[in-house]
Formats: sequence, C-alpha cells, structure tokens
Amino acid sequence: MNVRLTVAYDGANYHGWAEQPTVPTVQGTLRGALGKLLHCDAASIRMQGASRTDAGVHALGQVLNVHHDTDRTEWDFVRGLNALTPDDITIWSANEVPDEFNARHDSVGKRYRYRFWPHRFVDPLRRHTTWTVRAPLDVALMAEAATALVGTHDFSSFRAADCQAHSTERELTRVELVEDDDELVLWVEGTAFLKYMVRNIAGTLVDIGRGHLDAGSMPSILAAEDRREAGQTAPPHGLTLMQVFYALT
Amino acid sequence: MNVRLTVAYDGANYHGWAEQPTVPTVQGTLRGALGKLLHCDAASIRMQGASRTDAGVHALGQVLNVHHDTDRTEWDFVRGLNALTPDDITIWSANEVPDEFNARHDSVGKRYRYRFWPHRFVDPLRRHTTWTVRAPLDVALMAEAATALVGTHDFSSFRAADCQAHSTERELTRVELVEDDDELVLWVEGTAFLKYMVRNIAGTLVDIGRGHLDAGSMPSILAAEDRREAGQTAPPHGLTLMQVFYALT
Repeated sequence: MNVRLTVAYDGANYHGWAEQPTVPTVQGTLRGALGKLLHCDAASIRMQGASRTDAGVHALGQVLNVHHDTDRTEWDFVRGLNALTPDDITIWSANEVPDEFNARHDSVGKRYRYRFWPHRFVDPLRRHTTWTVRAPLDVALMAEAATALVGTHDFSSFRAADCQAHSTERELTRVELVEDDDELVLWVEGTAFLKYMVRNIAGTLVDIGRGHLDAGSMPSILAAEDRREAGQTAPPHGLTLMQVFYALT
Repeated sequence: MNVRLTVAYDGANYHGWAEQPTVPTVQGTLRGALGKLLHCDAASIRMQGASRTDAGVHALGQVLNVHHDTDRTEWDFVRGLNALTPDDITIWSANEVPDEFNARHDSVGKRYRYRFWPHRFVDPLRRHTTWTVRAPLDVALMAEAATALVGTHDFSSFRAADCQAHSTERELTRVELVEDDDELVLWVEGTAFLKYMVRNIAGTLVDIGRGHLDAGSMPSILAAEDRREAGQTAPPHGLTLMQVFYALT
C-alpha cells in the first residue's frame, strides 16, 4: 500500500523537513509517529516528501507518500498521526495512491508564499510568520522587478552556495507581490526550485524595495549567473510551502 | 513626568496582564524592564494598565501609563523597553501625558477581536491566535444573535463567576461577526467590560452557531442575569485587545 499525506507544520521548532541524525526534523517526527501507528520499526518505513523545506520554513500543503503493508485506512492515518504528532504538525488528509506514486518525483510544481511586514517593530502575533522589514519599501518597484523573474531562466544567482543541483535552469510561472492589508505577500509558483531560491528572491526584492539594488537590475542579476549579484537571503520564518501540484491527481 | 505607552503582546507565555507574586505576567515583565530603564527600584514604579487581560489573551493596543522623575524621552522609552523586553512584547509608542492621566480610569472604551477558525483540525500557523471550532457553524444565526447584544444591558449572564464588579450594566456599541477569508472574526466594542465578558459572548455565539443554543435566545439569556443561561467560555488565545479609546487624546 502507498498513501499520500498532505500536512502542515510550523517550522520554528524543526531543523527543516529532511531527516538529520541528531536534531528534530519534520520528517523524523512523522517517521516516529508512523512507526507507532503502523507498529513497525520506524527506520524501515519508506517515505518521501515533496519538498525539503529549510530549517524554520513552514508548510500548509507539504505532501509525502508512505509505503506500508497494513490494513490502516486513510482515516486511520489522519486521526492516528494527528494524535501522535505535536501541536505544530497537522495532517490534513490521506489518500491511497498507486504503488509507483512518489511525492517528490511526481510533483509538477509548487506554490510558496512569503510574508513581509514593513514596520519598525515586530508584531508579537506575527513574529513567527512574517519578516519584519524595518525600512520603507517601494512596492511598485518590487512588483515590477518580480515580474522579470517569470519564465524559464538560469537561476544560479538565486541558489545557495552549497546547492547541489546539476541543472540550474528552472521555470517560474508566477512571481507576484500582493498588498494584503498592512502586509506584503510574495507568491512564487514554479516547476521546481533550487536551494534557498525563494528566500533569495524575497531578499533581493526587499533590497530593490529599499533602494539597495537598482529596480531594473533583475535581468542582469539573472544573466550574471552569480549569487553575489543578487541580494540578501530572506529569513526562513516568512516562508510557507502552500501547495504541491501533481499532474494526475 | 507621566508617559503613556501603547504595547502589544503575545499572551501565550503570561498569566495575564495583572501582576502576581509567583508567575510571569505582562505587567510584571514591563515593570522589570522599566526598573532597568529608569535605574530605580522596579517595585516603586507607579504604573497602570487600561485592561487587565486574562491569562493567554493577546493585545495589539494595550495602553498603560508610567510615572517617573527622570529625563528619559519618549523615544528612550520605546527603544529602551523594546530592547529590555522579550520578543513577545513590543512597545509601539510612548507619549508624555498630563500628570493626572490614568490609562485605566480615563479609558472611555475598548475594542476586542476574537478569531474563530471552523475546521476539523488545527492550523499550526494559527494555533496561538484562533480558536479552532471543530463543528459546522451557522454564521448567519451567529451574526443575528450578536446584534442583540448591542446597547446598554445587564451583562450578568456573561460575567465570570468570580467577577468582582459592583455594577453589571455595560454598554456595547459594536458586536459584529465578519467573515474574513476562511475565518470568522468577532469585533466587540464597548465602554467597559466584565471579567470574561468577551470570551463568554464568543462562546455563546459558537453554541448558537452549532445549534446547541437557540438562535433567538440572546434576549432571554441577557434577561435571565444568570451565567448558567449563556454558553461556554471561549478559550483565551483567540482574543486580542485591539485598541483602548480616550476622550481627549
């Protein structure tokens, strides 16, 4: 049996999605809960997440698949895992899928949200979910610069120094900055992403909005294929993986 | 000198606003910071908050006033207290006010917000700021019932059992339920409030929305002047003190 789970988490207490031997991760926490649910050796469970979210990054629509050979129902997974995981992880849904389904390889796209709050001080109620940018931002310049990223480009300038991806070409279908009440929200959708890519885009847009980078520089930053040409890396807590897209489901 | 401070806090880590000898409170934390800022014995500082928010209740617009005899400027208070308080408390502003100004007694009204999320599971990113109501709610019935509370009434049915107020008559100028994306938001404004009054109103509206209380029962609940006639007390974490109103400022 192969079950697809859609999950949400507050990334604050985790060193990211991907398992690491000595620190808490979302995948490791879910593996432990799955071991209890399925009454098996947790380490032996085959599971695959769609996105390896960074330490501190949140998700409202992470997807993973889990292989098992029990008679657990979809609802057993939802109810059982919600009971077995802490408050900062929620399982929204579980669906049986064909054995060959792989949450990572079968993904055809992802949607991310990055929340900015332009204010001198931190709002205590949003301190874990928005980046407080302590400077005036020219939103129109940022929005215009964002559109230059839409399309298929080499995103070398926006990847982490230690990013291991072979190819650096990616396609973004949406890079849109939206004003929502007193916040700025950046929506980024694309087929796949390099390490830190969304956070580097968010940070570069802020550098443009503050006037630290030229508003028209986005095409030349892309063309440089050099991380040093882009702006700062935005902090993880403003970022949320909203949705993972699949072709057939 | 008398300075008025407007502050925000995440109430999760505090046993409410009002100082208590052995547990952390917002007022106690601010008093400690003020002692350091003013280089004086913290216990001797005369300070008064507008609202004694309950344990776990948040504020985005709490107001207090602090008497001192130093040459600290308004900006010293803002910058200094933000540096001396933890992340979950923010000082928005400081203003010098006449010596007789008292944040509590001079208040002429307050605005509260209560956020509900009707969903089977908890959203990890909103778990500290919304009440997840795990049942379908009839929003139209709730909105109609809310309007019955506007005006001057005896609110005995909505006060905590241990509420000490002499008079139980209060005036509410706004009790409005608003749909905001996938949330329900209750806005309550009035001249003054009894203990747990907003949370008891919020809980009673949910009981009406779920069909546990009759939709038309709000006038008779008020008329009963009996706490047992109203519904449950909503949990504190959905409630935020948004603003305190003053006549002259």
